[in-house]
Amino acid sequence: MARICMIGAGNVATHLSQALQTAGHEIIQVYSKTLNTAVSLAEMLGCSFTNQLQDIVPCDIAIISVKDDVINEVASQLKCPIVHTSGTKDLTVLGNEKIGVFYPIQTFSKDKVVDFQNIPICIEANNSDFLQLLNNLATSISNNVHQLSSEQRKYLHLSAVVACNFSNLMYQMATEICEKHNISFDLLKPLIEETSNKVQKVTAIEAQTGPAKRKDLQTIERHLGLLETDKEKRKIYELLTQSILNRS
Amino acid sequence: MARICMIGAGNVATHLSQALQTAGHEIIQVYSKTLNTAVSLAEMLGCSFTNQLQDIVPCDIAIISVKDDVINEVASQLKCPIVHTSGTKDLTVLGNEKIGVFYPIQTFSKDKVVDFQNIPICIEANNSDFLQLLNNLATSISNNVHQLSSEQRKYLHLSAVVACNFSNLMYQMATEICEKHNISFDLLKPLIEETSNKVQKVTAIEAQTGPAKRKDLQTIERHLGLLETDKEKRKIYELLTQSILNRS
Repeated sequence: MARICMIGAGNVATHLSQALQTAGHEIIQVYSKTLNTAVSLAEMLGCSFTNQLQDIVPCDIAIISVKDDVINEVASQLKCPIVHTSGTKDLTVLGNEKIGVFYPIQTFSKDKVVDFQNIPICIEANNSDFLQLLNNLATSISNNVHQLSSEQRKYLHLSAVVACNFSNLMYQMATEICEKHNISFDLLKPLIEETSNKVQKVTAIEAQTGPAKRKDLQTIERHLGLLETDKEKRKIYELLTQSILNRS
Repeated sequence: MARICMIGAGNVATHLSQALQTAGHEIIQVYSKTLNTAVSLAEMLGCSFTNQLQDIVPCDIAIISVKDDVINEVASQLKCPIVHTSGTKDLTVLGNEKIGVFYPIQTFSKDKVVDFQNIPICIEANNSDFLQLLNNLATSISNNVHQLSSEQRKYLHLSAVVACNFSNLMYQMATEICEKHNISFDLLKPLIEETSNKVQKVTAIEAQTGPAKRKDLQTIERHLGLLETDKEKRKIYELLTQSILNRS
């Protein structure tokens, strides 16, 4: 079991530290530059806290889960073995002796419990002992652990943004259309669920349906007419419909 | 229990007729302009078939589930009470004495079984008796039946295309990025599942995460760099990211 310092107290840090603690690891300290945030997570975990990086106690590993653009600055002040949890940052952004990446591919929101067992975790390290430690850590909370290069991880993160954040934007646009016309968004929930279920089993290209897939230009024209006064949605509808037409 | 003729033998007709039969209704005949297609579905249901509209037998209701642009032409050759299953076509596209709409909001693929119990079905009719019959039919297969006007249904269908077909396009784009860089699309499946699960419980705007939501312009720039050689994906990335930025 590892003795861990958690550097950061945002969504990823919160969910990850809870999962690691549940798996029997010891979270010994939480750092956040905002003291209140550090206190909140530390209280949840029953450990010490600090908002000073020089006060970080000795540990087997410090997990850096802060905004991408401050990873470097934070890491440079730590002496212990470190990993970051970023999808986009290279391993070599870290300068310590033992460095690694511990990237869980999931969308974490504050109040939504997630089960780590099925969450893929991508690991990478600059030496084989440390990689083994990361592998032990990852497999203690997930059945879905993968070793990926920094280069592959970058593209994986890009595709995660496309599959997750952009899909969620589609849900949001659909919500806005429904609200404007007094239709309950609940009517779309089974459809959204089934759409994501389908690609668990068949490819997305096989799963595609709808007017663009059928090359039903009349319906497409009618939809563009309905969006006449909403320039942004109309532009997105046109571009995505063209993209489906190109693939059909 | 109703005696039903199924006009059309595509994905919606196939899934719907099976659900109705299972609920105890009698599918007495299947029509498709392609004889083979009519035969396939009729064999599955154990009923008669035809590819001639003038041979449709008397029934309580004919369910027209054909391409939107031929609904009118098909309907004009039928004498019985009729409904169509289209999300976009007005009720009044049908000219018979008893006309209605029976629109299940779901994405149907050929080999993927769907459970109708939770599928919302939108009904509409030109007289109250026929509306009652449609309501009985709908509630016999689904717990989620709604009366919607043609105008509302049009916007619902538009939002269904956005939430379903466009999300599926995002899955497809993510698949393409993964394949190009030898990454298994399986790594994204739990993320896709969680993204659609989230909006079953919280609003899409609350559920949003990612670089655009965080206004992490560095990551956005890096992603655009990774898409340098793929003009279409780059354009979609830019437009959708801007759209999230505008809402954040």
